[in-house]
Amino acid sequence: MSSERQRELNQPLGGNAMPRFGGIATMMRLPQAQTAAGLDVCFVGVPLDIGTSNRSGARFGPRQIRCESVLLRPYNLATRAAPFDSLQVADLGDVATNPYDLKDSVRMIEEAYDEIVGAGCRPITLGGDHTIAWPILRALKKRHGPLAVVHVDAHADVNDTMNGEKIAHGTPFRRAIEEGLLQCDRMTQIGLRGTGYHADDFDWCRRQGITVVQAEACWIRSLVPLMAEVRARVGDAPVYLSFDIDGLDPAFAPGTGTPEIGGLSVYQGLEIIRGMRGLNVVGADLVEVSPPYDTTGTTALVGANLAYEMLCVMPGVQFR
Amino acid sequence: MSSERQRELNQPLGGNAMPRFGGIATMMRLPQAQTAAGLDVCFVGVPLDIGTSNRSGARFGPRQIRCESVLLRPYNLATRAAPFDSLQVADLGDVATNPYDLKDSVRMIEEAYDEIVGAGCRPITLGGDHTIAWPILRALKKRHGPLAVVHVDAHADVNDTMNGEKIAHGTPFRRAIEEGLLQCDRMTQIGLRGTGYHADDFDWCRRQGITVVQAEACWIRSLVPLMAEVRARVGDAPVYLSFDIDGLDPAFAPGTGTPEIGGLSVYQGLEIIRGMRGLNVVGADLVEVSPPYDTTGTTALVGANLAYEMLCVMPGVQFR
Amino acid sequence: MSSERQRELNQPLGGNAMPRFGGIATMMRLPQAQTAAGLDVCFVGVPLDIGTSNRSGARFGPRQIRCESVLLRPYNLATRAAPFDSLQVADLGDVATNPYDLKDSVRMIEEAYDEIVGAGCRPITLGGDHTIAWPILRALKKRHGPLAVVHVDAHADVNDTMNGEKIAHGTPFRRAIEEGLLQCDRMTQIGLRGTGYHADDFDWCRRQGITVVQAEACWIRSLVPLMAEVRARVGDAPVYLSFDIDGLDPAFAPGTGTPEIGGLSVYQGLEIIRGMRGLNVVGADLVEVSPPYDTTGTTALVGANLAYEMLCVMPGVQFR
Amino acid sequence: MSSERQRELNQPLGGNAMPRFGGIATMMRLPQAQTAAGLDVCFVGVPLDIGTSNRSGARFGPRQIRCESVLLRPYNLATRAAPFDSLQVADLGDVATNPYDLKDSVRMIEEAYDEIVGAGCRPITLGGDHTIAWPILRALKKRHGPLAVVHVDAHADVNDTMNGEKIAHGTPFRRAIEEGLLQCDRMTQIGLRGTGYHADDFDWCRRQGITVVQAEACWIRSLVPLMAEVRARVGDAPVYLSFDIDGLDPAFAPGTGTPEIGGLSVYQGLEIIRGMRGLNVVGADLVEVSPPYDTTGTTALVGANLAYEMLCVMPGVQFR
Amino acid sequence: MSSERQRELNQPLGGNAMPRFGGIATMMRLPQAQTAAGLDVCFVGVPLDIGTSNRSGARFGPRQIRCESVLLRPYNLATRAAPFDSLQVADLGDVATNPYDLKDSVRMIEEAYDEIVGAGCRPITLGGDHTIAWPILRALKKRHGPLAVVHVDAHADVNDTMNGEKIAHGTPFRRAIEEGLLQCDRMTQIGLRGTGYHADDFDWCRRQGITVVQAEACWIRSLVPLMAEVRARVGDAPVYLSFDIDGLDPAFAPGTGTPEIGGLSVYQGLEIIRGMRGLNVVGADLVEVSPPYDTTGTTALVGANLAYEMLCVMPGVQFR
Amino acid sequence: MSSERQRELNQPLGGNAMPRFGGIATMMRLPQAQTAAGLDVCFVGVPLDIGTSNRSGARFGPRQIRCESVLLRPYNLATRAAPFDSLQVADLGDVATNPYDLKDSVRMIEEAYDEIVGAGCRPITLGGDHTIAWPILRALKKRHGPLAVVHVDAHADVNDTMNGEKIAHGTPFRRAIEEGLLQCDRMTQIGLRGTGYHADDFDWCRRQGITVVQAEACWIRSLVPLMAEVRARVGDAPVYLSFDIDGLDPAFAPGTGTPEIGGLSVYQGLEIIRGMRGLNVVGADLVEVSPPYDTTGTTALVGANLAYEMLCVMPGVQFR
Repeated sequence: MSSERQRELNQPLGGNAMPRFGGIATMMRLPQAQTAAGLDVCFVGVPLDIGTSNRSGARFGPRQIRCESVLLRPYNLATRAAPFDSLQVADLGDVATNPYDLKDSVRMIEEAYDEIVGAGCRPITLGGDHTIAWPILRALKKRHGPLAVVHVDAHADVNDTMNGEKIAHGTPFRRAIEEGLLQCDRMTQIGLRGTGYHADDFDWCRRQGITVVQAEACWIRSLVPLMAEVRARVGDAPVYLSFDIDGLDPAFAPGTGTPEIGGLSVYQGLEIIRGMRGLNVVGADLVEVSPPYDTTGTTALVGANLAYEMLCVMPGVQFR
Repeated sequence: MSSERQRELNQPLGGNAMPRFGGIATMMRLPQAQTAAGLDVCFVGVPLDIGTSNRSGARFGPRQIRCESVLLRPYNLATRAAPFDSLQVADLGDVATNPYDLKDSVRMIEEAYDEIVGAGCRPITLGGDHTIAWPILRALKKRHGPLAVVHVDAHADVNDTMNGEKIAHGTPFRRAIEEGLLQCDRMTQIGLRGTGYHADDFDWCRRQGITVVQAEACWIRSLVPLMAEVRARVGDAPVYLSFDIDGLDPAFAPGTGTPEIGGLSVYQGLEIIRGMRGLNVVGADLVEVSPPYDTTGTTALVGANLAYEMLCVMPGVQFR
Repeated sequence: MSSERQRELNQPLGGNAMPRFGGIATMMRLPQAQTAAGLDVCFVGVPLDIGTSNRSGARFGPRQIRCESVLLRPYNLATRAAPFDSLQVADLGDVATNPYDLKDSVRMIEEAYDEIVGAGCRPITLGGDHTIAWPILRALKKRHGPLAVVHVDAHADVNDTMNGEKIAHGTPFRRAIEEGLLQCDRMTQIGLRGTGYHADDFDWCRRQGITVVQAEACWIRSLVPLMAEVRARVGDAPVYLSFDIDGLDPAFAPGTGTPEIGGLSVYQGLEIIRGMRGLNVVGADLVEVSPPYDTTGTTALVGANLAYEMLCVMPGVQFR
Repeated sequence: MSSERQRELNQPLGGNAMPRFGGIATMMRLPQAQTAAGLDVCFVGVPLDIGTSNRSGARFGPRQIRCESVLLRPYNLATRAAPFDSLQVADLGDVATNPYDLKDSVRMIEEAYDEIVGAGCRPITLGGDHTIAWPILRALKKRHGPLAVVHVDAHADVNDTMNGEKIAHGTPFRRAIEEGLLQCDRMTQIGLRGTGYHADDFDWCRRQGITVVQAEACWIRSLVPLMAEVRARVGDAPVYLSFDIDGLDPAFAPGTGTPEIGGLSVYQGLEIIRGMRGLNVVGADLVEVSPPYDTTGTTALVGANLAYEMLCVMPGVQFR
Repeated sequence: MSSERQRELNQPLGGNAMPRFGGIATMMRLPQAQTAAGLDVCFVGVPLDIGTSNRSGARFGPRQIRCESVLLRPYNLATRAAPFDSLQVADLGDVATNPYDLKDSVRMIEEAYDEIVGAGCRPITLGGDHTIAWPILRALKKRHGPLAVVHVDAHADVNDTMNGEKIAHGTPFRRAIEEGLLQCDRMTQIGLRGTGYHADDFDWCRRQGITVVQAEACWIRSLVPLMAEVRARVGDAPVYLSFDIDGLDPAFAPGTGTPEIGGLSVYQGLEIIRGMRGLNVVGADLVEVSPPYDTTGTTALVGANLAYEMLCVMPGVQFR
Repeated sequence: MSSERQRELNQPLGGNAMPRFGGIATMMRLPQAQTAAGLDVCFVGVPLDIGTSNRSGARFGPRQIRCESVLLRPYNLATRAAPFDSLQVADLGDVATNPYDLKDSVRMIEEAYDEIVGAGCRPITLGGDHTIAWPILRALKKRHGPLAVVHVDAHADVNDTMNGEKIAHGTPFRRAIEEGLLQCDRMTQIGLRGTGYHADDFDWCRRQGITVVQAEACWIRSLVPLMAEVRARVGDAPVYLSFDIDGLDPAFAPGTGTPEIGGLSVYQGLEIIRGMRGLNVVGADLVEVSPPYDTTGTTALVGANLAYEMLCVMPGVQFR
């Protein structure tokens, strides 16, 4: 990359140009783009919470993540990633949803992602409840073929139905598997735990070939070895990272809709994302941040940081 | 009423039998009933917020109103109403809704109210967002014929569509009027205000024959005279009271989804309900309490008190 | 008062000497005194909440009122009272209570006030729950004889028993009346409202000769005329002001233990206190501020201001 | 105005195009402009709180006001103002300040406003603490000459110094008067109250010819008559409206830095702004919203609405 | 167990029958029972906080734990416990306490537990402050003889007196040991830490034969090995689990009355309870959740989950 | 130490003499001293937040830390330190700062610390933002010579300038190093992490000879080994401990101005401080607690405890 090109890349608005508490809150204070054309990676919000089964509020997730993202500076001091030195990145704003019809919202999301993905852009999505993963996966499959998946969550999200409905925030991976969007043998679910409707709820996943790593298997240890296994499993497949913030323990991320105790630590969350470096990451999401329940502001801050870390493992990022 | 019968009437669990901070939180700590059979009046919750256009959270309204209602004692010290001396009242629990489909939820609500109203019971509904008024009005119309209405709200809720949808928390009275559920010339809307999509938004209501009392006309004055007019307008018609908590100013009720400044005071809210004494009130609702935004707990407390005041103006209540 | 003496009077620590956010939080940042000797008026806390029937938390009332009092400057810009120009005032700290025994706490409070009142000091008490009024009144009676009372509250606090107990935050004035501590014909209760165990709960007070002004009689009007009547009623009797913060509407004072809607405005609260100017005020309390429920901080702020206004109507205050 | 031109005017992003909880939070979801060129009116933020004497946090005022402004629709249903039908309006974003040097920040603000005002644009400022009024007034004076002022506040803000400093949030109008920026005989201060360093603090203002309306004179009454007087006093002078949110009572606006009880109601706040219709308003500010203390979100909501109402009385607005 | 019997066992109300945000909030949405007759295990609340030494509020613990428990589904996905497949379980509601007299409350609690335990039911108690452990232990001893104990806490709770009182939340185990209710050589205290009145405070416990495991000995490690030791120590004795939520670090459980930093993680809390599987657990409590200080809601959520985990290690539970 | 002397040493006010929720909130409820004369160690507050780059609020840090410190008892049950058995300790109150001028505040702080340090007292400072470390270090250097440092923080705080300013909360150690106040080869920075303006931001520190331990190197492990290295590195040099609460992860300390995820655990924070036992600690600070963002109260509680632990490793403390 020539210094010529470097000068043309979008950069986050710096703290010296505008105090961090000032300015319009786009993601990382990046320029807002109207379309994905010309972008290597975009941040894009999907404000939606009508797929939630318990607490709502995730509709404000994208806005609040952006608000807390203003503290982020461009370089990753842990991994020395320099995403803005080589990638064209912008904030695409939000995908419009239909607040009164979940099925129609799913349709609108898929159309919006068809366009984003079709432009060759890799989306990092700010949710929004987990329902949105399904239409996003549909759009990605069209371009990249069946996807390997790293899925961080307290819940498997493979219910057949919820309240009789096929579409809800507990069903997206069931739908995706049914439609052949995923490569289950290259899929890993990390952090699953809690209570269920059957003692063997997670075994359905295992029967599809998915590797399930329950939260208890992660307690009080580093996930660096696990991620080596994950990378081997993914191999050179296009891979999607779906990160439900409730994969983390409520101590680290209280502001979410269906919190489960005994979850991953934020250290492990970072290890998971950083452990995806080198893979062909074609998209990622950070979902289920519910600001009304995030009384400390920490959850949105975690969400903003994790979204940034996702950017730092996108193909093409340089490390210094 | 004989003392015999009085002993059989449900009574709220008293503070001496169980401290107010103890016990299962039913409405006013009344017994819970499985059906409306034999009840004169019931409290019933409709937990729903997928009809909201801005902040969600009203799905937890019924639960939180019940929690704050535990402070309520049986007698009204302002009006000397003694509702539990002559009426059989219980908490019916909540109407199950479909959290993922608003249209289906509307159907479920109507069915539930068909049963409640069909049993001869007058429901006091704890919402939930304002969408629920429409199916409730449909059920009431079947039994009582077209209804007079007292509608307290910041918004007229007569939009034709929202985001292209016919069903939403901003459309229930449009639908009700279209279906002939209401007697518009016996309907009053109080507290309307704020911003709109057209400068003449409220004139549509007026053209239907509704009396619109904008919030500005209520500022810093008693509404006792207004309520005399309202009573005359209603006459002997069956009348429904629909009280959106955002009719009150956010100073009095901050925890709601689409707050508008410059609203009614809580004094005026009480005057309105108390001013309905003597009318043939066939049902009432208290909607749009959103607990995640009710950081002081005041909104749910107001909601609980207003629901109790609604009980105190039901036909058949004795005053001592 | 000579200018000589004036220089020796305690003064609140000024904002120029120490920013308002700095310094140890005594009441108004006044010097702390170990005893009441030599003081004309003292602020004194009684941290106690084991007399409460619903929400607890008032044990932290004195501390939080002090924290919010740091914004107070010495002169009253509305009444031009200059309390520190002529009175010796200090913060006496808190009366130690027994957190595990209400009856013993009442004993400890009375002993502490015997000493304060015995020193010729007029106490302004920061509560604590309303139970504390009874031992304070006992101590005041010993020195001043039976007292006229101005009692601002949502509740009459004249229950005979609560849960079978004679001592609780709902009984202090019953106990005081039984013991002949009060001149009921010179007593006014303002702001009473809400729900009760009998429709005629407040009539017991009226039968004792107390003037009861229910909240509804105060709505949306000035209480200046009422206070003229109150002053006439009190005459030259020693008078005690007991101000339960729940006398105010929750919009103005949400952080309290047994909130009732439809209460006094803060304007009326100020009119009541200012209306006592010229009377022989021998003591006052501000009770039932519960900081854990005061999520906005407003209630403690109101409490601090009202306590200051009480100081401004103490005998001997000069107006400039 | 031809329909041709109307189509070119900026419009707030509508709720049907993007749900209100979605999209980047500019003021009213208006387009963001880089400069004031071509704008009739702009919203502009000044994030600054290092001029505050008690609680800080107002640096986040502009961002939070924008977040709550997303609920605002284009038309004013009370006054029928249609500001976007005839005025070109945009969100200019924030003025960069120096978070570590108040004096330098004041310089930066003045320069920024020189440019805005120089472009013929009338700024509606979202603060930020009240210090910012001084550099704004300096810029306005350069273009419009000495200004009439309507100043809503709990405090007179005419201190000579604070902690020995000439520049602070309690001194802007002193500085402005010293420099001849104001027409004191055409200036009104409304809502002043609380405690002070001298009993006659407000008399200094009166000696300059300012009309001071203390809060007590406003209690429980309409300010429509007052505003008739104000309009007469202002006449045809260019007039600036400076609205400190602490002019309102903490019940209506708890999230501010130096709250004083007994303030204006939000109804009166609206009456004041609407009462300025017809004047030559050359600028306005809404200051001292402190989001960390705005736990209910109400204060920012009030701020957003009042800023919108300021727009509605700008010269050139049409009413429908 | 025949399938016949299985159908008769109480089951938590499922999320498909009623959305989790709906319905009356009993524990896990189980049926409420009036007596313990026929129950294998009950959940029962003891709303009490007048035994607390610092922050109050635990009186609302049972209600809030119930509110957060609505998210719990019947099966334990970590241990595959299926408690409702073989045990009859219900929510007994709350034990009435005397809010004004701690000693009397203790008496009332003992009587209530005499009845529960006498019915052959194993109680899982939702507190309330830790004072309640003493009367519960008295009732259990009468039926089961001296008890082994697993006590999770930041504090040893073996003070002789507090403020001169024998009964308080810091004394229950001292009283229990004095009365011979416990088998100290089969007792383990886990998580003790913080500051004390003597440097050797915990040595008194050790002198009684109790095994004390200070928090520091638990940091950053699994407690599975410790629990093997605990199980060996308990052997076949009847064992009581007393879990003070302040045993956990405030990061995991901020809403409590006397928080101490450096506590157990929630992972360790789960390891402790799950490590009791196979023991003859005769009762358990989860105490000191103080909702007013639980601003994130996490503490009550943790409490609800831990109470469920206690159920999962009760004798007779099946694992699938 | 004779028992004679012991009796003269200041002791924290005990919980039996005054309930912990009562009394004026000095640090640990110690006596307040006017000067440092005769004190071995003092607690002293520096209320300042005008050096912050993102969220303000730390100006209230000292007051809130004091409020939460009331729960602290005199003896350390983990280390058996008995600081009040041998050291004379008091609360010095706060250093007055200039709220409107950061540079002047720095001057005022240095002067105040010249006096404290000059009296032979070792200060434990309660901040306030991190700017204050620089003037404190200047004062300490004058008496003790260049200092070894243990610096716990998310940020290196060695920026040359921020917004063009030399003095800010991100520059104190840069200034201190430039002035020769520090022995860089005896300095350790622990917990650094997050994002930066250059990928090699921390390398500047390393080039000065500082040992930098990034947060990632601390994850999920004990820091006892690290502290052995730190002690060896410090040797017998006078050493200063500067503890920015944001060194901890937001799960443990959410209430701070520039939070970064992935930080130290509170266990590690305790290990660091306790690991300094035996060193010649000449002063310590605990900075960046921002109460408005500390919605759970946990951060101030952690701050109070850490400040106490600092006292426990001061030279001369006895262990029992």
